[in-house]
Amino acid sequence: MKMKRNKISVIGAGFTGATTALMAAQKELGDVVIVDIPDMENPTKGKALDMLEASPVQGFDANIIGTSDYKDTADSDLVIITAGIARKPGMSRDDLVATNAKIMKLVTKEIVKHSPDSTIIVLTNPVDAMTYTVYKESGFPKNRVIGQSGVLDTGRFRTFVAQELNLSVKDVTGFVLGGHGDDMVPLVRYSYAGGIPLEKLISKERMDEIVERTRKGGGEIVSLLGNGSAYYAPAASLVQMAEAILKDQRRVLPAIAYLEGEYGYEGIYLGVPTILGGDGIEEIIELDLLEDEQAALAKSVESVKNVMKVLE
Amino acid sequence: MKMKRNKISVIGAGFTGATTALMAAQKELGDVVIVDIPDMENPTKGKALDMLEASPVQGFDANIIGTSDYKDTADSDLVIITAGIARKPGMSRDDLVATNAKIMKLVTKEIVKHSPDSTIIVLTNPVDAMTYTVYKESGFPKNRVIGQSGVLDTGRFRTFVAQELNLSVKDVTGFVLGGHGDDMVPLVRYSYAGGIPLEKLISKERMDEIVERTRKGGGEIVSLLGNGSAYYAPAASLVQMAEAILKDQRRVLPAIAYLEGEYGYEGIYLGVPTILGGDGIEEIIELDLLEDEQAALAKSVESVKNVMKVLE
Amino acid sequence: MKMKRNKISVIGAGFTGATTALMAAQKELGDVVIVDIPDMENPTKGKALDMLEASPVQGFDANIIGTSDYKDTADSDLVIITAGIARKPGMSRDDLVATNAKIMKLVTKEIVKHSPDSTIIVLTNPVDAMTYTVYKESGFPKNRVIGQSGVLDTGRFRTFVAQELNLSVKDVTGFVLGGHGDDMVPLVRYSYAGGIPLEKLISKERMDEIVERTRKGGGEIVSLLGNGSAYYAPAASLVQMAEAILKDQRRVLPAIAYLEGEYGYEGIYLGVPTILGGDGIEEIIELDLLEDEQAALAKSVESVKNVMKVLE
Amino acid sequence: MKMKRNKISVIGAGFTGATTALMAAQKELGDVVIVDIPDMENPTKGKALDMLEASPVQGFDANIIGTSDYKDTADSDLVIITAGIARKPGMSRDDLVATNAKIMKLVTKEIVKHSPDSTIIVLTNPVDAMTYTVYKESGFPKNRVIGQSGVLDTGRFRTFVAQELNLSVKDVTGFVLGGHGDDMVPLVRYSYAGGIPLEKLISKERMDEIVERTRKGGGEIVSLLGNGSAYYAPAASLVQMAEAILKDQRRVLPAIAYLEGEYGYEGIYLGVPTILGGDGIEEIIELDLLEDEQAALAKSVESVKNVMKVLE
Repeated sequence: MKMKRNKISVIGAGFTGATTALMAAQKELGDVVIVDIPDMENPTKGKALDMLEASPVQGFDANIIGTSDYKDTADSDLVIITAGIARKPGMSRDDLVATNAKIMKLVTKEIVKHSPDSTIIVLTNPVDAMTYTVYKESGFPKNRVIGQSGVLDTGRFRTFVAQELNLSVKDVTGFVLGGHGDDMVPLVRYSYAGGIPLEKLISKERMDEIVERTRKGGGEIVSLLGNGSAYYAPAASLVQMAEAILKDQRRVLPAIAYLEGEYGYEGIYLGVPTILGGDGIEEIIELDLLEDEQAALAKSVESVKNVMKVLE
Repeated sequence: MKMKRNKISVIGAGFTGATTALMAAQKELGDVVIVDIPDMENPTKGKALDMLEASPVQGFDANIIGTSDYKDTADSDLVIITAGIARKPGMSRDDLVATNAKIMKLVTKEIVKHSPDSTIIVLTNPVDAMTYTVYKESGFPKNRVIGQSGVLDTGRFRTFVAQELNLSVKDVTGFVLGGHGDDMVPLVRYSYAGGIPLEKLISKERMDEIVERTRKGGGEIVSLLGNGSAYYAPAASLVQMAEAILKDQRRVLPAIAYLEGEYGYEGIYLGVPTILGGDGIEEIIELDLLEDEQAALAKSVESVKNVMKVLE
Repeated sequence: MKMKRNKISVIGAGFTGATTALMAAQKELGDVVIVDIPDMENPTKGKALDMLEASPVQGFDANIIGTSDYKDTADSDLVIITAGIARKPGMSRDDLVATNAKIMKLVTKEIVKHSPDSTIIVLTNPVDAMTYTVYKESGFPKNRVIGQSGVLDTGRFRTFVAQELNLSVKDVTGFVLGGHGDDMVPLVRYSYAGGIPLEKLISKERMDEIVERTRKGGGEIVSLLGNGSAYYAPAASLVQMAEAILKDQRRVLPAIAYLEGEYGYEGIYLGVPTILGGDGIEEIIELDLLEDEQAALAKSVESVKNVMKVLE
Repeated sequence: MKMKRNKISVIGAGFTGATTALMAAQKELGDVVIVDIPDMENPTKGKALDMLEASPVQGFDANIIGTSDYKDTADSDLVIITAGIARKPGMSRDDLVATNAKIMKLVTKEIVKHSPDSTIIVLTNPVDAMTYTVYKESGFPKNRVIGQSGVLDTGRFRTFVAQELNLSVKDVTGFVLGGHGDDMVPLVRYSYAGGIPLEKLISKERMDEIVERTRKGGGEIVSLLGNGSAYYAPAASLVQMAEAILKDQRRVLPAIAYLEGEYGYEGIYLGVPTILGGDGIEEIIELDLLEDEQAALAKSVESVKNVMKVLE
């Protein structure tokens, strides 16, 4: 039986989409199709070709193409949605939600049409609500529509802790629940350096600062860049989730999953610890929460629900 | 004796510089310092931090910082210069040369001051002349001042050939002499797929088209992007050269080297096959050229000399 | 659609089989089943478990099991046969052939029964004849029954040349036709360092010595080890072929392929340049041979045919 | 300044030593010298050459040589000692200790003579006492003489837990203190899957079984193999420690370190959590222990001291 490469489509050829495509190709996770709107077709082709021209030098085998035609995405195994607009000065949050929801619907229609058996990972903000929109529009089973936020949030947290302790990032772990950024519910008691609970290594005050910096991690990059937002760490996070699914690794990773009673919530997409494998979200891991964690999660849920109201 | 990581400084935090920093860090070649002008300090810091936040997710250990202060580059083992302006509409080539030469001199002064034992790789265009400028300004021995062009040119050539033959990029090789881009002297007779000379696999006409496309490879990306130029493949090329030097690999790679009689030329930087190892350009490999190749090389030299005249 | 890992079965848990399993797992090519005879079941399980216990440390995800029950190999995508006896002192070559052919038949029956859609790579010596035996016994299409010899032979050649020239092994290539070891037909004119024909870099005499050392490469290891034969380079070679197939890379690699007229031969398995991809041997590349090369190939064919006579 | 590769010497060319050399070379940690006694010089050379012949195929640049002459190890950055005999039937433990201590002394003399600035990692059993012997004989500072046991023990533990929970090994961590094997003090409360304490995921009874299996992990492989002991996971463990040191990663890894008051003990080598970096053991991490953990550690210390008595 002929062996076939996996096929990954990345919707949105901005910095995050392009970097995601590169990182997926570097890992030889499959062939990559980058899609953007017709107006951006040439730049998208240009980025794809530039990456492809890096492939003999870096030594990876992956076809990478840029396109504005969803036909080229046909039979993708995995689709990663990075498309959408960023909030501009003067734009209300509701306008942002409405615009991106519209984009999600258009994109999802095309995905369902061309790759009905695919799994979808959503990055577009506000990500909980956008993942919900894709889920509803796609009609896909819930395990195959997944949002990204926790891998990125913990990536930032781990970076700050590794710097604080002057240790390898490989040995620091983090744990978050709930929404992205401000709504993030960090579980510091489940975060470690070399297996040692961080509480034993970092003072409460310093840890609070690190948590706060993590919450504002996206904003920190935005204000440094001045123009645009983070893309390296977001792309790395998407590709780690993609790898877990495409290689059926059953990794324990935080992901935005559709809850049906877990953690006491129903009919909402929320960041929770999951097992990511060949079937997408194969399990949601439920943990007992402390009271203040429950309260923080409730607040996070409230915030997601407020955004969801805009969708209706 | 304490083991120390290598230190790599990347001058210029544009797309190429940033991507170079990322790829060097991904390979754990060392800690990375990205430098740009004071006006760009914050965006440079932002890109560095974003990359660093990708490190726990991608699993690499490398400190990455952005700065506008050359003090932070102190004691670099390797410095990669990507700084410089691109030619803008209406700008004469001589103006471009003059401006970038001025930048090279400023940058080189700082490198020499802070990292007197480093090896320098130059990417800035027009690269032959800019490498010469850095060489002269630095006073470094010739083996430690190197320009990049051939790894990129052959990377593009290999990509086009692999596509033409529907083969793995890993098994296609290319070979060029002379200047970058239009001045490139392709040696197709030294280019292979799986060791088989390409002449046996691709018709003369088709090969001419591929060579022509390679020559115009930078321009192809520029016109697709509409705004800006290639950075993925250039960054990959720089990092391959960096790896060869930092890991003392003695790789056979095309590089822009200072000629003192080789190929019949003297006192000029030109693209030739070299052995890149711990000492930078450890050898220049001299090949017998066919008449038309000699003629093409002479034309390439002429072109480099014309640019060098502007420098005086 | 659920993503599934590839499944690779390695028949024979000796040093080569075990090292092959390790290297396949390190590259995360799929889950690995190592099979040996019932008498060796426990040692096989022991090696598999030891490798598995290395996986968290090395950071690869692959299930690895040892077994003597072919049921565990069910639905393998790829099967690698390393089983067979080595020639012992006093054993005639014909006895070796007869014994290993018997083993091939038994093994092949099980493969066909449990993994009817698999592709098979054979390492067992004399490899041309053993690959033929597996082909006949399996009834598989010829593209899905492949022998290994050229990747190993060129690996050795490349090592010796890299040492001779003090260059990175990454930049040296080799090219062989015909049988394994003594029957090898080296095509030095298709062998290069950094794309430069070796004839320009190494004297004829020295090259003859290197070719001769390559021919005797297996014997050199045997006499150094004193007891047993090479396994690191053979395993690496098998895994490179496996990777090309499982990742559908369309690599240009020498392999033992079934000829139906190519190079003027019919109904015989012989080492030739091939394109290895998702369909196994997707193409055989035919080259014009010089007279002495044709003669050497004819001699190689004669030698393979002599062995095949024993099989009848 | 010329960049130089690191140099790693592996003492002992048995399965563990050879696999360690291979894995270090695969990661391009440096050039590798494998040393064994004069009687084993040829097999050692054979294994080294076989590995080297795998290098062009696997794509790593590392010189690998086999020798019985310590001169070839001159100026090693890191030395890994795997030499020593295994306990044979009928041999008393004291005889084992005496014999291996004698070997350690001989080996250490040579290391000190030829690589006075190196860092040494010891694997030979009984490893706590053997590391002590090397420390005393070498006169090296304590941070540069390190024993391996905890990386291997936790590697096994992580494997068993990952199997139990059907999760990626990448997301399971373990934590041990004290001696190797039977004397191991597992800190299950510091062991996690995806950051979640294992106690929440695995029943007490099942966990006790897993801990017990980990303790007997070496013996499990010995009895499966029938003849010989584990080498894949031990080699991977040594190479992880080597990488942490050579790349100055400051990883948090369990290691056998010389205690001067830490955990209440003095003048003894014991398995504790450490920070491994460019300076060897850069720190010992002290943890508060529960009463039963303290008791188990005391027992472990007793056991190490009993072995040390034999040394006097």
